Formats: sequence, structure tokens, C-alpha cells
Amino acid sequence: MSAQSPRFEKKLRAGVLGATGMVGQRLVSLLADHPWFELTEVAASERSSGKTYAEAVRWHLDVPIPAGAGDLVVKGLNPTLECDFVFSALDSSVAGSAEEDFARAGYPVVSNSRNHRMDPDVPLLIPEVNAAHVDAIPLQQKNRGYDTGFIVTNPNCSTAGLVLVLKPLADAFGLEKIFVVTMQAISGAGYPGVASVDIQGNVVPFISGEEEKMEAEPQKLLGKWNGERFVDAGLGISAHCNRVPVLDGHLECISVSLKKIASLREVREALRDFQVSSELAALPSSVRNPVIVLDEQDRPQPRRDVNAGNGMAAVVGRVRECPLLDVKLTLLSHNLVRGAAGAALLNAELLAARGFLNRDVRSEGPESLAESISQ
Amino acid sequence: MSAQSPRFEKKLRAGVLGATGMVGQRLVSLLADHPWFELTEVAASERSSGKTYAEAVRWHLDVPIPAGAGDLVVKGLNPTLECDFVFSALDSSVAGSAEEDFARAGYPVVSNSRNHRMDPDVPLLIPEVNAAHVDAIPLQQKNRGYDTGFIVTNPNCSTAGLVLVLKPLADAFGLEKIFVVTMQAISGAGYPGVASVDIQGNVVPFISGEEEKMEAEPQKLLGKWNGERFVDAGLGISAHCNRVPVLDGHLECISVSLKKIASLREVREALRDFQVSSELAALPSSVRNPVIVLDEQDRPQPRRDVNAGNGMAAVVGRVRECPLLDVKLTLLSHNLVRGAAGAALLNAELLAARGFLNRDVRSEGPESLAESISQ
Amino acid sequence: MSAQSPRFEKKLRAGVLGATGMVGQRLVSLLADHPWFELTEVAASERSSGKTYAEAVRWHLDVPIPAGAGDLVVKGLNPTLECDFVFSALDSSVAGSAEEDFARAGYPVVSNSRNHRMDPDVPLLIPEVNAAHVDAIPLQQKNRGYDTGFIVTNPNCSTAGLVLVLKPLADAFGLEKIFVVTMQAISGAGYPGVASVDIQGNVVPFISGEEEKMEAEPQKLLGKWNGERFVDAGLGISAHCNRVPVLDGHLECISVSLKKIASLREVREALRDFQVSSELAALPSSVRNPVIVLDEQDRPQPRRDVNAGNGMAAVVGRVRECPLLDVKLTLLSHNLVRGAAGAALLNAELLAARGFLNRDVRSEGPESLAESISQ
Amino acid sequence: MSAQSPRFEKKLRAGVLGATGMVGQRLVSLLADHPWFELTEVAASERSSGKTYAEAVRWHLDVPIPAGAGDLVVKGLNPTLECDFVFSALDSSVAGSAEEDFARAGYPVVSNSRNHRMDPDVPLLIPEVNAAHVDAIPLQQKNRGYDTGFIVTNPNCSTAGLVLVLKPLADAFGLEKIFVVTMQAISGAGYPGVASVDIQGNVVPFISGEEEKMEAEPQKLLGKWNGERFVDAGLGISAHCNRVPVLDGHLECISVSLKKIASLREVREALRDFQVSSELAALPSSVRNPVIVLDEQDRPQPRRDVNAGNGMAAVVGRVRECPLLDVKLTLLSHNLVRGAAGAALLNAELLAARGFLNRDVRSEGPESLAESISQ
Repeated sequence: MSAQSPRFEKKLRAGVLGATGMVGQRLVSLLADHPWFELTEVAASERSSGKTYAEAVRWHLDVPIPAGAGDLVVKGLNPTLECDFVFSALDSSVAGSAEEDFARAGYPVVSNSRNHRMDPDVPLLIPEVNAAHVDAIPLQQKNRGYDTGFIVTNPNCSTAGLVLVLKPLADAFGLEKIFVVTMQAISGAGYPGVASVDIQGNVVPFISGEEEKMEAEPQKLLGKWNGERFVDAGLGISAHCNRVPVLDGHLECISVSLKKIASLREVREALRDFQVSSELAALPSSVRNPVIVLDEQDRPQPRRDVNAGNGMAAVVGRVRECPLLDVKLTLLSHNLVRGAAGAALLNAELLAARGFLNRDVRSEGPESLAESISQ
Repeated sequence: MSAQSPRFEKKLRAGVLGATGMVGQRLVSLLADHPWFELTEVAASERSSGKTYAEAVRWHLDVPIPAGAGDLVVKGLNPTLECDFVFSALDSSVAGSAEEDFARAGYPVVSNSRNHRMDPDVPLLIPEVNAAHVDAIPLQQKNRGYDTGFIVTNPNCSTAGLVLVLKPLADAFGLEKIFVVTMQAISGAGYPGVASVDIQGNVVPFISGEEEKMEAEPQKLLGKWNGERFVDAGLGISAHCNRVPVLDGHLECISVSLKKIASLREVREALRDFQVSSELAALPSSVRNPVIVLDEQDRPQPRRDVNAGNGMAAVVGRVRECPLLDVKLTLLSHNLVRGAAGAALLNAELLAARGFLNRDVRSEGPESLAESISQ
Repeated sequence: MSAQSPRFEKKLRAGVLGATGMVGQRLVSLLADHPWFELTEVAASERSSGKTYAEAVRWHLDVPIPAGAGDLVVKGLNPTLECDFVFSALDSSVAGSAEEDFARAGYPVVSNSRNHRMDPDVPLLIPEVNAAHVDAIPLQQKNRGYDTGFIVTNPNCSTAGLVLVLKPLADAFGLEKIFVVTMQAISGAGYPGVASVDIQGNVVPFISGEEEKMEAEPQKLLGKWNGERFVDAGLGISAHCNRVPVLDGHLECISVSLKKIASLREVREALRDFQVSSELAALPSSVRNPVIVLDEQDRPQPRRDVNAGNGMAAVVGRVRECPLLDVKLTLLSHNLVRGAAGAALLNAELLAARGFLNRDVRSEGPESLAESISQ
Repeated sequence: MSAQSPRFEKKLRAGVLGATGMVGQRLVSLLADHPWFELTEVAASERSSGKTYAEAVRWHLDVPIPAGAGDLVVKGLNPTLECDFVFSALDSSVAGSAEEDFARAGYPVVSNSRNHRMDPDVPLLIPEVNAAHVDAIPLQQKNRGYDTGFIVTNPNCSTAGLVLVLKPLADAFGLEKIFVVTMQAISGAGYPGVASVDIQGNVVPFISGEEEKMEAEPQKLLGKWNGERFVDAGLGISAHCNRVPVLDGHLECISVSLKKIASLREVREALRDFQVSSELAALPSSVRNPVIVLDEQDRPQPRRDVNAGNGMAAVVGRVRECPLLDVKLTLLSHNLVRGAAGAALLNAELLAARGFLNRDVRSEGPESLAESISQ
């Protein structure tokens, strides 16, 4: 690090837009004691702004509000925050333009919102799956006239776990068709979200817009950035989405057909052996083996397995033959961690490691950044 | 009715084997005030026998034990009961031989147990779907040396609703492939069944033997009796079965491919127009339209829709296109009524109407029987 | 009935204010096929008005919207409705002045809202407990300058069941102290009410304002109208209120001290023998024995016993000695029926029988009214 | 440590009787990496013995079976285990005589079972409440002819949290009467415990024997050992016990009367200031302030607060005036930790610190033992 860039010698300053919501709270919590990032700003819709975070938030996590975060004053959604980049956990009713405003003002925006996910120049990113998609950022900046700012997104909570499991199968055997039925946790609907009289002892077989996302997003995630645009993976996907009375953790039953014949043993091995690159392994929130395969016949279960791998793993069980396609299995992932806050955080870590989050000094190489911070 | 057969002038006497279990209780309840049948005997494993039914049973229904039933003395499983036929709601650990004993002793056995469902000479019966399969009874009696006795079964609780919905589709368009994921209620596991610490706020993605049944039983149900044997329907079926924290009602997400091209409107109409024959419509437990199609986008829901059609209907919603097969939909049926006790009762009613339940006077035609009883 | 009053020869026309809420829906449902009343108007806050009821309501009951009700156009809260009296199931934020407006305009207002319950000239009424309190109506009309209009209220949902059980004890033995802890159902909070992430697998030991109501309302209910004012019962009452993940039915653990020594057998008998007067027995919604005593050691249970007595009974179990006071017991009542909609309906029936609901012809005696309607 | 007692230089060897049950599993888990104790033996009823622990147990905790524990061979209940003392988490059907057998054979028995709790020479122990009760051990040994063995018990799961909260109130103000209503978690009933069809969306207002325990055990816990016998505290206690659909954590609503007048502020302070002695603070499982007082009006809540203080604290909220007694409050404690496994472990730690757990060398003083181990 040169003497002219003292910022590199300390943590990157992060803001959280939509900090009072369920996902925002998780982000605030995950940022406590983060080795690379420091939470310096929380922002929310007008109604909350002006209060301290502790006053404004209806805190849902079992652990207390992190020291430091509670005293931050909640700002509005104006792109004048004191930070190097922002996370966006905004509701989709406001995320679209707010994220653009911040990007235009020079802030890298690491978003969990759905608004820009399918934009043709915005990476929809899962580091373990398609890290190369960050290469689209310069073109996005050029297209949109952004300077240092840009938008990167993570997928929908139910897509995240699915694609993490599909990735090693796609690599090892090639993928053709995916049939998926979800049983999604109530925390995925935000707060107040699902009314208790609707879900008590019940299942609601509909989540607005969810099936469409699950049928579209994996195409982009498992597709390629060809230097000019994202090329879809060309998969056949059919999704049924249900809400079940479970607190955290989306469970999914899937059947897949593979391009190459594979035994169940080979499938299990491909899943178990899925390991991240050394670049990713160096990211604070990554897990070396993001897919965990259980052998018990009645697992994974949301309440018991949702926190496996600190909530950043997809947990797989019941790998067996499918009479219609090739393989059936059940998978679970934490909708608020791997499917939202943890996903955005991991994206930010990858972007930091590659040097995208330093607003002023773009000439610095990413390796040196990561090194200097993590020391 | 001739003077020699005074029995025809009164209700047929029914016994219930396994009367203290969840399904047995439903049968006892459904038999109260039944226009054709009178409950005269309750039987169970040795542990209960000798007590009155009220003493022996841990009653689970919201309505009280029917007057008359509570005072019956619980008998053991010896085929010496005072009744014209028996229902079997026995656990599969004892049902196999007990049902054979009763059939050999001359009792028609209307069974909910899985043991004999796939026997090559035993009808697996849903009256609305394959009433013609009762034609196999005479061959069964001949094969096994039974005199007036025989065994007829109803399908597994999760198969029942599925096949009821598949039947009109098969008739109208032809069926090829069925993909099904179930979310099954806890009452389907009997009592004490699922431990609360296992299912509280959780989903268990495994039910022993259930997927195998769902992939096999529809083949027989939708197949044909050719006079000598049951010919399978030759369907491709893939099932994933899950237990969810719902009291009653199995919800199923299905995708199907059809032999003939059909619009969603045609599919909905075929389901809505599915109507039973006049023979079936005369059975006390039948519903004229056994498939109910809802238009609300978030229905059917187990807690809200499980009792539609007195629990004897399959409730369908969300009929839409499937990107992989042809049609996606969600269906619900009451696992203890349509899927168990009500299914057995309807089977018994069909058998009574066709004259199979009168042990002594086989020469009487079924029509006269039904007529004399129902007057 | 004389020829000049044709109205008496048909049903009384009822309006429901707040018809789209949880309690309003119950009222609409209970009014279907009511022998004395006919629903002719539904009204709600501005947001809903103008739509049909079927369009405006998010219907929560298992039974469908009654024929006739769905097509009614939802009116605003102006006292210009075409009906003989109104029920009020309004939110307390608007009920106070809206109910006064209707009363001033001449409408009898039968309210479930809390706003006027403790007004010194407004009856807080449970017919089985304090029917004589309706005698306060003329003074209320005089005090407030109301003509034919007036306000009558029913108690809070958790008070209703409690006082129904206390009444026969007060009559037989005299009451001194009551200790009560409630476990209240989620439907008591309206819709959307309690967020599922707050109550899933949880208990919330606080319900705003509930303990205050439970400690105040029984004093008025069990007190007397002395011709000029309500005289409190002078009881010592301590309440703890909790929300539990139960759909319908408030369960309450109580201990009471009695003025007169009584055996447990005498207490059980006093509860069992509690029977309504013949005047009340003639009301369509009344039950002859409004307290049901169960002998099973683990009852009453909300899910299993909530509908006893059509939801209009209080169900009592576990009557036993209390080491601190005299008697301990557990009671259950349906919060939406006995505790809200059914309570208001029964109040209206009493008022109709006593001739208070006919806006124009006040000179007619109540007996003739009830007689003419019920024929 | 002298050369003659090499055992003191390593951890004390612990056995767990009833190791496969819910409480036994918690003990096995809490003993992993314990600084003073090492798990060397697991024992259970005959059915499990001979298998490894991993084979025999149906593991319920979210964390895996501790390394080392899984490979232990499950022994029967013969007092020939290789360990210095045993924990007993046995079912009460076998605990009575098994614990006596082990004590007679020389093993200190630290029991969670109810059988010997009220024995006149057996300490019922909560270290923060009545550590002096261990002085009864020598008399117990003399009475029963035990050599180095003895029995010490911890209270019922619902009593534990209650008494922890009562203790500082008794010390500061004196206690007279306690009214308590519990809402107890399903995990308190063991495995399989409560059937899901009994508790789903329901409350069961009865737990066999629980009210009797709650009315009796606090008398002994808050009473005194006078050198010859335990003298009861002479409190008036009335308990109502309920089972609610919550996984872990017993919530209790209590009202108490105090001997000395106290303001709510003084009560809160007495609870907050309750601090353990330095002897107890040195025990590995103790928390310095075992009562946590929350200020939020809707806390404590089982799902959110059950793990406060590592599950060893009682969490108090809603301290307010009681119209009948003096003070009302709500308390929560973890039924499996503070109410069972953690309670037994803390008892064992106190006994170890005071030198009671070394079977051979009784002459060593307790201080040196604790010191040598903890170094």
C-alpha cells in the first residue's frame, strides 16, 4: 500500500440501506467484528430516519444489537453517506431507483433486492458459482455513465441454495432439467410478513413472484458472461413454491436430469467434493465446502440443519434415483444468511478482494487490498 | 326381500378391526347414524380387548364418541365377530394375516391397511376411479378358497387424493408422466405418531415407504382388470414425500404431462366436470363432484380447505402451465377421510350396493339390497 | 302486532360496522339464516367503501361468505344505513365517535369495541350474567339526548369466558378474589394481527391493555345497576395475559376465593347446574347450560373444545383445591364467538326480545315482538 | 496435591446414567471439553447396552455428538462403571433403586430424577440458592451405610427457574405466598414425549405430578438444613401447569407477596443485583448474575430468550404491581439446561469444589481440588 492511500490500512466503511428490515438486521449483525468491513452508516425509509438504530429497529435476532450499531443515527436514502460502499436490503418498492442513485453517486451497491437482478449489465452473483460475472461491472459503468459506482446483486433466497447445489452437478455431469418444489420459511417474507392466522398449522401454496424468479435466475447464474452480455444456461426449470410454518430455512425437493450418465455415488461425491478456489477460501464468510451431504434418511431438516456451515452452506440429503429424471434429492439453505444477508456479504468480500470497493483508488490491485486488510 | 332373509330389512352389521387407532376412530365416528351400516363390533390388539370401547380408546376427534359405540366391548382379532363384514384399520404389523383370517372365515374385509393392496387378486379400489375392479373378487375367492369372504383395499392416504385428480385428466387427455411432492399432515402417522419435538417448526423430508407406495399404487388404480389380472397404467411417476406441521390434510404439488394437447381452461373444465355415475351418487358417502377447483391464487390450504366435500373431495388450485411437463397444480385431500376411513366406507358402500356384503344370501341382486336398505 | 307496524312481521334489519375485520366476518357469518335478524348493510372504513363485501373482505372463515352478504355494497361510517340497528365491530381507533354518531342518529348500537364499555351509563352486558343492566338504557338516552338510539357493549374476549364461569360461583358462594392467567389465541388480535415470526413456537407474555380490562370489566359485569349508576362488585382481581400459538380459544387458569365454604363437589355442581332463564333460553344464540364441566384431567384444550356449545359456552376442567385461595380451575371460551361476535349477537337478541331494537315503534311490548318474529 | 493422590492431577471421570434420553444427551454435550470432568462412561437401560453411544442414541441437539462420546460403549445400570461419580438422568421408573445401588457401591450420584428429591437426608440443591444443604451428605452416608457414595438431586425443571427468582426476593424482603402458572416446553417431556397431534396449535392444561412438585420442592430449596433435617420454608404456593407448543424454555407467570414492603424499583434491583459468591463464581458452569431482568414490555419470550446466560440464567420481565399479592412478574428458564442437565452439572461442580467427588481420597480439602483441576 502506498502512503497516499491510508484508507487501505483500515477497514472499508460499509453502509446498509434498509437496515431496519429482517435482512438489514442480519447484515448489521454479520458486520459486527467483520475483519474487512466496518459498519458506519445505516439508512432506511423516511419514517425511521433521524432516530438511532436502536430506537428505529424492531430487532428480531437472538443475539443483541451489536455495540456500535445501536447508536448510529438512521439516515434517509440520500447518496451522501459516509462509507465506501453500501449494502442494499431495501424493499423492492424503493430499491430500484435508490440503488441507481447510489451507484450514480459513486457508491458500489451490493444488493439483495430483486429489482436489478435480471438487468443485462448487472451481475447476479454467487461467488462459488459465477465469480467471473463481476467482469461485467466495467461495461455496466460505461453503459450507465457510472464512475466508481455500480450494482451487483445476489439471487432470491430460494434460488441461492438451489444453484449452489446445481453448480457441482453442472460442472461434473452437465444439467438439463430441474424440477423443484420449495417449502419456505416465514422469515423469508420479512416483517411483519406472513400473518400468524394465515400460516398457523397450515401451508400456503403460493408466494408472489417466487416461481418466476426460480425459473429465471438460475439461467443467468449458471450461464456465462461473454464479455458483452450474459448467456443463459438454457435449462428447463419448473418450480412450485410453498410457505410452511418454519422459522428459518428453505427446504427444496428437486429432481434433475443430467447430460452425462452418473451413478448416485458419483453424484454424492461431486456434491461432497465441491470446494471453493483459494481466492474464495480467503474470503471471511466463505466455507470451503459449501455443499454438505448428509447420510441420514430423514435429513436435512430446517430446524436442525439450517445453521450448518454458519448458515452459508447448502445441506443435501436423500440423494436417490428419480423414476422420471435422473436424480432426486432434498436440499436446505438458510434463507436469511446464504439466501440474503450472507450472500450479499460474501459478494462484497469478493468485490473487496478484487479491488472494486475502494471508491477513490481504483488503480490498486485487488490482491494487495485483501492482503493489507486481512493482516 | 324374502322372509328367510330378515337381515336385508335392517342395516348391515359392521365390525371395525383396529378400532382404537386414528383411522379406526374415524370409522367409528363415520358409522354413527350411517343409513346402511350399523356398528356392532369393535376389535383391537390383545392389549385393549375386554375393555369397553370408551375405556380402551384415546379419543382424538372433536365430536364425542358416538352413543352406542362407547359401550361396545372391545374384542380380540378372532374371526368370530357378530357382524356381516369388517373394516380393517389395523396396523400393518398385524393386518396381513388377520385380514386373511377374517376373509377365510367368510367375512368381507374392507381394508385400509397396506398389506394386501398390491396382491394380484385384491382390488385396490376408489369407486370414482376403478369401480370395475370389484370384478376381481370372485377370482380372488376362487384362488384363495374363500367362500363368502374376500379382501378389498383402499389406497394410501397420499395416493387417494392424487389419483382422484388424475382420473379425469387420464380420461380426457391421457396421462404420461406425474411428478409429485407431498406435504403431509401429522395425523397421517397415527397415534402417538410423530413426536412433537421432531416436527415443531420443522419439516421432515422423509416418510418411510411412502414414495414407493405413491409410485406404485396409481399404476394399479388407473390400470384395468382384464378378467384375469390387473394391468398397470404404465405411467411414469416420481414422488417426494414430506411431513409438515399441519394437523389434517395432505397437500401435493404436481406436474403432469398429457398425451393430448389441452389448454389450461380445458384442464380446469375436465376437473370441474368430473362427476360420478348415478350408481355412485346413490352411495351415502359419495360427493357428486369429487374434485373441487378453486380460483384463488393461494388455495387450497390444508387448514382452510381440508373439509371441503365433507372431507371426501380433492381440492385443486393453481392450475397453470409447467415449463417441463404440461400442467402444474396443487391439490389437497383429507388424509383421514378421503385417504383412509372415508375411503374404506365408500368402498363398503359400493360393495353393499353391488350385493357383496351380505354373507349368507349371495343370490340377492345388489339393487334390491341397496333399495331395501335405503328406504 | 297491529297493522300499523308491518316491520314487526318481518326480520329486524341489521347493519354491521367494521364488517371486514375478523369479528365483523364472524358477525356476518352468524347472521346468515338468523331467525330474527337480516343483514342489510355492511360498513367499514373509507378504504373499503364502494366495493362489494366479497371484493372488500379478506375472508377468514372455513365456511364461505353467506349468500346475500357478498353482494352488499360496503358503505362508509355515516349513520344513514338502511337498517333497524347496527352491530359495531369497529377498531377502537374509530369506534368511539362512530358509535356515538349512530346512536345519536337513532340507531341502537350493539358494540364489541372497548371504547364505551366502562362509560357510566352504558351497559356492559352478558345476558346470562347481568341482563338487568339493560335498564340503564333509558337514562343513557336521557343523559345524552339520544332518541331511539343507544349503545350497549359486550366485554373483552378474555373477560367474557371468565365472568360466565364466575357468575354461578358468585351466586352460590359469593366471590372475593380472582387470580387469572390467560393463554390467548392469535385470532384475538385481528388481522393481520400477530406476525408469524413473533409467535411461531413462542409465547408472548404481553397483550396491550388486556390485563387492565380483565381487572376492571368483571367489576361492572358482576356488579349492579341501582337505577342511577353501576355499582362495582368489589372483587380483588389480578390478571396476567399471554399470547400463545393457538388459532381460536382463550384458555385461562384461575384461582378464586369464595365467601362461603364449599366443597369441590359443590363447586362443580354450581357450575354444571348454571342454567339460563326461560327468557334467555328463547334467544336463538343462547345455550341452556352456558358452562360445561369436563371430567378428563387434561381438558379443556383450545383445539379440541373451543366449539363446545356452538362456541357460546365456557368449558371448565380441573376443578381442584387451591393452596392459596379456595378453588383452582381451567376454563376455555371461544374468543371470536362467546368473546366477540356471538356475544354481540346474543346481546342484540336480548335487546330485541325486550323491544329495544325497533326504532319507530317503541310502545310495543317486548314479548309481543319476540313472539311475532319467532313465529 | 500430594504424590499419593495422582487422580487429582487429572480430570474427574464422569459417567452418565440414562445417557440416551433428552437430558442425558444434554449432559453428554455439556461435558464435552469440560475443564474439570471427563466423560468416560455412558449407561442406559438394557435395550441400549452393548451398542456404541452413537448407535444407541437418537440425537436431538443441533450440535453433533461430541467426539469421544459417540464411540463409548453403552453399559447397563450396574454399579461397576469406570468413573469417579455418575450423573443420573434416568427415567423415574428405574432411577429410584439404580441410584441407590450406585451410591451404595461408592459412587457419588448427581441426579436429575425426581425419586429421591424429597428424601429427608438427600440435598435438593441449587448452588446459588442453598449450597449449605450439601452439609447433609455425611448424615445421609451414615444413615444409609454408604461409604464414599451419596445422592444429591436438582429440582424439577419448572421449579428451578422459579426458585432462582424467588431466592433474592426471599433474602431481601422475605416471602409469604407464591402464585405460579407455567407454560412449559415440549422438550420437558422427554422423547418421544408429547405426541404432535396432541400439542399442534393447542395447549394441554395438565402435566402429571408437576403441580405437586412445584408446590413442594421450593419449600425444601428455600428452607434450611439444621444439622439434622431440612426445615421447610413455610411458603404458601399454588401452581397451575400447562404444556404449550414451544420447543425449549418454561415460561412462568407469578405473583408473590413479600414480608417487607418494597417498591417495584427495589424488587427489580434485588433481582438484578443477585450475584453469586466467589466460590460459585469459580464453578465453570455458573453465571455471575443468574437472574437477568429485561425492560421490554413483551419479554421474556421462550424462543428469543431461552439461551440467555448460556441457558443457566432465569430471565425476568414485566415486574409490576399485583392487585392481590404484591408483585407480578414473568420468568423464563431453559428447562433442559437450568432445569435439568446444567443444573446437575453445576451441582457436580459445587460438589467437586468442596471435595465430595473424589471417591478414594476424602481427606483432601475442597479448595486444593478445585485449584489443582482448574490450573
